[in-house]
Amino acid sequence: MSGSAFGFRLDAADGDARAGTITTAHGEIETPVFMPVGTAGTVKAMTTDAVRSTGAGVVLGNTYHLMLRPGAARIARLGGLHRFMDWPGPILTDSGGFQVMSLAKLRKLDPDGVTFQSHIDGSSHRLTPARSIEIQHQLDATITMTLDECTPFPATPDEARRSMEMSMRWAALSRGSFVTRPGYGLFGIVQGGIYPELRRESAAALREIGFDGYAIGGLAVGEGQAMMFDTLDITIPHLPSDRPRYLMGVGTPDDIVGAVARGIDMFDCVMPTRAGRTARAFTSLGIFNLRNARFADDDGPLDPACACPACLKHSRAYLHHLFKAEEMLGPMLLTWHNVQYYQDLTRGLRRAIQDGRLALHAEQLRAKWTMREDQP
Amino acid sequence: MSGSAFGFRLDAADGDARAGTITTAHGEIETPVFMPVGTAGTVKAMTTDAVRSTGAGVVLGNTYHLMLRPGAARIARLGGLHRFMDWPGPILTDSGGFQVMSLAKLRKLDPDGVTFQSHIDGSSHRLTPARSIEIQHQLDATITMTLDECTPFPATPDEARRSMEMSMRWAALSRGSFVTRPGYGLFGIVQGGIYPELRRESAAALREIGFDGYAIGGLAVGEGQAMMFDTLDITIPHLPSDRPRYLMGVGTPDDIVGAVARGIDMFDCVMPTRAGRTARAFTSLGIFNLRNARFADDDGPLDPACACPACLKHSRAYLHHLFKAEEMLGPMLLTWHNVQYYQDLTRGLRRAIQDGRLALHAEQLRAKWTMREDQP
Repeated sequence: MSGSAFGFRLDAADGDARAGTITTAHGEIETPVFMPVGTAGTVKAMTTDAVRSTGAGVVLGNTYHLMLRPGAARIARLGGLHRFMDWPGPILTDSGGFQVMSLAKLRKLDPDGVTFQSHIDGSSHRLTPARSIEIQHQLDATITMTLDECTPFPATPDEARRSMEMSMRWAALSRGSFVTRPGYGLFGIVQGGIYPELRRESAAALREIGFDGYAIGGLAVGEGQAMMFDTLDITIPHLPSDRPRYLMGVGTPDDIVGAVARGIDMFDCVMPTRAGRTARAFTSLGIFNLRNARFADDDGPLDPACACPACLKHSRAYLHHLFKAEEMLGPMLLTWHNVQYYQDLTRGLRRAIQDGRLALHAEQLRAKWTMREDQP
Repeated sequence: MSGSAFGFRLDAADGDARAGTITTAHGEIETPVFMPVGTAGTVKAMTTDAVRSTGAGVVLGNTYHLMLRPGAARIARLGGLHRFMDWPGPILTDSGGFQVMSLAKLRKLDPDGVTFQSHIDGSSHRLTPARSIEIQHQLDATITMTLDECTPFPATPDEARRSMEMSMRWAALSRGSFVTRPGYGLFGIVQGGIYPELRRESAAALREIGFDGYAIGGLAVGEGQAMMFDTLDITIPHLPSDRPRYLMGVGTPDDIVGAVARGIDMFDCVMPTRAGRTARAFTSLGIFNLRNARFADDDGPLDPACACPACLKHSRAYLHHLFKAEEMLGPMLLTWHNVQYYQDLTRGLRRAIQDGRLALHAEQLRAKWTMREDQP
């Protein structure tokens, strides 16, 4: 761990889009950045060497999964998550709140936190803002997220307000519990559903508390891309311009291009890894489903624009065969490719911003996305 | 493909043990050699780069699996198995006979071959000596195996004789069907169960036909290590000393050490890859089961003598966690380790033979194998 301060430097801007550098105790992060999801201490189906080879510099860990198994105290004893999973670079951990609401059994939310049963063994656990911060400290997260409630969609204005106001109280408590260390950051999360006034109030509340970065939560939960982009448009102007902005749980390549154009710097999503395990490939030509019979005799590379091992060394026919034969190498190679694609995508967006040609670049990307996985 | 002739050169001997070099169209193979099994065109859970990184120079492909899916003619159209699976080095393919008898449905053996239904889709297929050779030619196998019947254990002397004599007729037919190409080899397979006279007759029959290498089949089918070694002792003297000797489907590290001491040059077995997928590790200290709770807080390397990524970058505690969490990276890392272990083992045996200290080396290996997977 170096002693460098946690910070954000703006390297270039193109319209509302930004190219920046986040400095952390575990190295620098160039933005826009996509963070592969390493749920339980592993980016599923990839070695850390493979993850690094894609150019990924920061990965995400899930507090909910890790607190239940192998346990945060155990990871602390074993030297922290960086050492445990062989990832010396920056790690962002979520607060655990999202998975508690989507995975845990018998969950009960109260004004001070949430009590729940493990989906693994039914054991009882409790997360509060302070406990979530403590767990993330035990994991040695480079970037810690405040505990919040991800407001469901749809929610009435009253429901969204109550949820947002609770999350803002929790954000203040989280700030108070966070142990400041050089190069480590704490991010607050804007909530408020699809309601402009609530988003504005939430952003103001977080600014008032003061965070090292600002996330936008509660999106990509069924509202659709148009409403998500509208919410970004009304929220981003209320966030400090000298801090990184993180759109949580997003998304498709097209979502990312649109969000970067609106000023988002950071993304995470299980989409590239989950898709890779189910034979779906994100490519410069669009989305393929490698199980499709049309690939059985296709000797060409998966994506001629990609330099990952799946594309350099193998044919679509081989990848098709691996999925038909249910060979583990299929998910391994396709996950690798998808993570590579997302890294190439965000690196390309960064270069385009630096060159002042983001709009043209985005147009060119979209024009090539003509392949659909349901094509015969 | 180079034009070099298929051949075997003896580099050193130590007692009955041999260190040799097999020259092939796809490169040289140093012996003793362990060939990882790439059943359906992939060494399960490993990229070809990972397989190469272990030092493995030759892999095995299964005719039965590949003829059914994706099909031998398709692989031929796609440039052969080397290109299909990204393995430019030597590939040995089996004849398909063993899997037909162990996996296929409604199989019916007759004096000319075997008719069976695919275990995948029930489709009907037939393998004859000529058809097996043709399929292996389509796959572009560097080393082709003759179709034989793996005599079950136990078998009466009469059963074993009938089975062996049929396999010898098939061996002659296979020889006649094989298209000789520079650097490509055809191996015959000695059968005869545990009966010395039958093994002697079988070896003599194969020598009379003439092959590029001689395999010993019908072992590791339940007869136990002592009877297997006895059968090697009575069979090997009847094999030509200027050709490679291949013990099919064997085995544990201890089996390999014992067979190398008796003059075997080549091995294949699913054991290291299958064990890797079920949390079992072969190490210089013995066999571990990584699911065992004693590893939950063990910060040490899996095998301190190993330089594979699982051992260099991760702890036993992390590997334990991956298997408990059913993460794909567990099988990936442990398969890699086990294949590395088998490669290190056979390379170490080769060096010991070259240095004339095989007996001492074998004794030292066995003395360190003290860990058992059922230890608390």
